[in-house]
Amino acid sequence: MAVTIGILRETSLGETRIAVVPEVVKKYHALDIALCIEAGAGEGSSLRDEDFLAAGAKVGAGETVIAAAQVLLCIQPPALETLARLASGTVLLGGLSPYASRERIEILRTRRIIAFASELIPRISRAQSMDTLSSQAAVAGYQAVLIAAGHCPKFFPMLTYAAGTIRPARVLVIGAGVAGLQAIATARRLGAIVEGYDVRPETREQIESLGAKFVDTGVSAAGSGGYARELTAEEKAQQAEKLGRAVANADVLITTAAIPGRRSPLIVSEAMIGGMKNGALVVDMAAEGGGNCAGTVAGKTVKMGGVTLIGPLNLPARMPVHASEMFARNLFNFISPWLGEGALNLDWDDEIVAGACLTREGELVHAGVRNVLGL
Amino acid sequence: MAVTIGILRETSLGETRIAVVPEVVKKYHALDIALCIEAGAGEGSSLRDEDFLAAGAKVGAGETVIAAAQVLLCIQPPALETLARLASGTVLLGGLSPYASRERIEILRTRRIIAFASELIPRISRAQSMDTLSSQAAVAGYQAVLIAAGHCPKFFPMLTYAAGTIRPARVLVIGAGVAGLQAIATARRLGAIVEGYDVRPETREQIESLGAKFVDTGVSAAGSGGYARELTAEEKAQQAEKLGRAVANADVLITTAAIPGRRSPLIVSEAMIGGMKNGALVVDMAAEGGGNCAGTVAGKTVKMGGVTLIGPLNLPARMPVHASEMFARNLFNFISPWLGEGALNLDWDDEIVAGACLTREGELVHAGVRNVLGL
Repeated sequence: MAVTIGILRETSLGETRIAVVPEVVKKYHALDIALCIEAGAGEGSSLRDEDFLAAGAKVGAGETVIAAAQVLLCIQPPALETLARLASGTVLLGGLSPYASRERIEILRTRRIIAFASELIPRISRAQSMDTLSSQAAVAGYQAVLIAAGHCPKFFPMLTYAAGTIRPARVLVIGAGVAGLQAIATARRLGAIVEGYDVRPETREQIESLGAKFVDTGVSAAGSGGYARELTAEEKAQQAEKLGRAVANADVLITTAAIPGRRSPLIVSEAMIGGMKNGALVVDMAAEGGGNCAGTVAGKTVKMGGVTLIGPLNLPARMPVHASEMFARNLFNFISPWLGEGALNLDWDDEIVAGACLTREGELVHAGVRNVLGL
Repeated sequence: MAVTIGILRETSLGETRIAVVPEVVKKYHALDIALCIEAGAGEGSSLRDEDFLAAGAKVGAGETVIAAAQVLLCIQPPALETLARLASGTVLLGGLSPYASRERIEILRTRRIIAFASELIPRISRAQSMDTLSSQAAVAGYQAVLIAAGHCPKFFPMLTYAAGTIRPARVLVIGAGVAGLQAIATARRLGAIVEGYDVRPETREQIESLGAKFVDTGVSAAGSGGYARELTAEEKAQQAEKLGRAVANADVLITTAAIPGRRSPLIVSEAMIGGMKNGALVVDMAAEGGGNCAGTVAGKTVKMGGVTLIGPLNLPARMPVHASEMFARNLFNFISPWLGEGALNLDWDDEIVAGACLTREGELVHAGVRNVLGL
């Protein structure tokens, strides 16, 4: 039987992205794979049904998509009631927030859904082109700087005008993963004086290569899988002291230290925020996981003394056209090696296929998720 | 009698700026001029009363400021009831929206206030350092691009990531005055492909020097005083046809063509907006004066088909720290040549002093304003 890939309209609050774009529809088409897309699913990304039809996809009601699809792609996990209606053996691929809900895993398991969470794709070099966390983090880092610049009461660039010179703003970015590096690059583009900090000292070179200064606290927390390990209390104190000076000096602080499945590390204390200038601004990109800064409220803008703290949610959804394009290509790169002549033939011996699998044959097969959720 | 300069808290809705900053307080001080500032007047610009006190100013209640000041500085015209309480012969200097209100001019006249509108400062080269329209337009052009980038569903820069390349956004800026040129420069900084258009063909070189492409419509409307003249109907048709193509090609359109005291010229028709891509974005910086685009609503974000139109108001107030600093320096440069040893001695033969004067000795003395208002 020829495989059909289905895309339902995303139903999470504020979600604007879609897991396929017309350019990628054509790529699936070249592998003899049919696409069936729920009417209106591209609306948030300025993609009309006729754009998908023109690319060769079918467009129909949600029910039609569910009935037709052997593979479903998603940006965020479908609603539980939708999962409960999927046929046994359906392949579900996309952002599944694997650590967020035991109930969801229970439904995936009992419905015998073959679920691949793009968040679990092993971070090995062959899988970089499939890495939705990285591609969406690049969008998020860029958006965080636009939010920061838009709220900053100062110019980012130096400006010389007829009555003199205006000094550039000072931006400090904490965490030099993909989001942090993109934030550094964007703030530099806008002309700010940028400092970057990360607990992994090997990031120094990357930070400096973007034209920013590395904040050296003398503490290292190189970890595995691209994430930092947790620091000891003593290391934290040393880090806080050195970092506090950099924070006090900044007009804008952007924090990016998120750890999947865990509370975000608290890096910036209330005292450090209190030491910032009147009018200073914080964008806490880790707000969703509890925040890197004391006082951050997820989804809100709050004042702490003279400092404004912004805790944005789902930054990639603010830029859906390109975020969707990037996400869609990532998923295509994951699944396409196993598609051909209209069929899906997964190789369970493949490290990436096995590593990204959350549930299969009625079992929660991912050891890391079992571990974190205690299942 | 030693002159005291007073600054009242701005009361216009949404105004965050202040017409003096501590750096400039010190400059007045060096001329033996005392400053008296209303408590809390710097709040919107993250300036505390203690910052002004530390710079040598006095801080007091509004009544105290009014009683003490022979010269009042302002960002926007004070409320009518405040003007009515000023002593006869008070000098008022700042943004006075001279074309906006006959009633205000009547009060300035009958209260025998010596009013200098910074908007009326002649645009000659000696006065560039006093030009608040230009300094605030630079802020506005920068802010318009931040709004545009923040709302654009695409990256401005080209981005190469593990799964391919994302094309940069295309930005079209209409009007190449200070605001337009700053918008072009900022969009270029962010990595967008930028086109610029102005009815004055001599702007081509400036647009191109910023790395943007000049849209050549074959129509010229070089005017006087730095502003464009109005086009004939035939010229408008030719302009619209050529410009329509550039508009249709843009992901982001920023329009900046404002004429003081007049309705903004309507440059972008409904048909041109209709020809834009689904998901395209317009920031109409001329919204306050009625807008350059059909459909713009001042102070609102509206949808026209798949196109989003943003009509922002008072853009400089979004970036008050630097906007205030620039404005304060402009006013200082206007008034300081006539201040010394604690006294104010205006030279009415000076072209700039005479040109910027709105009312004096009970008369509306500015011919241009008399003309526009029919007084």
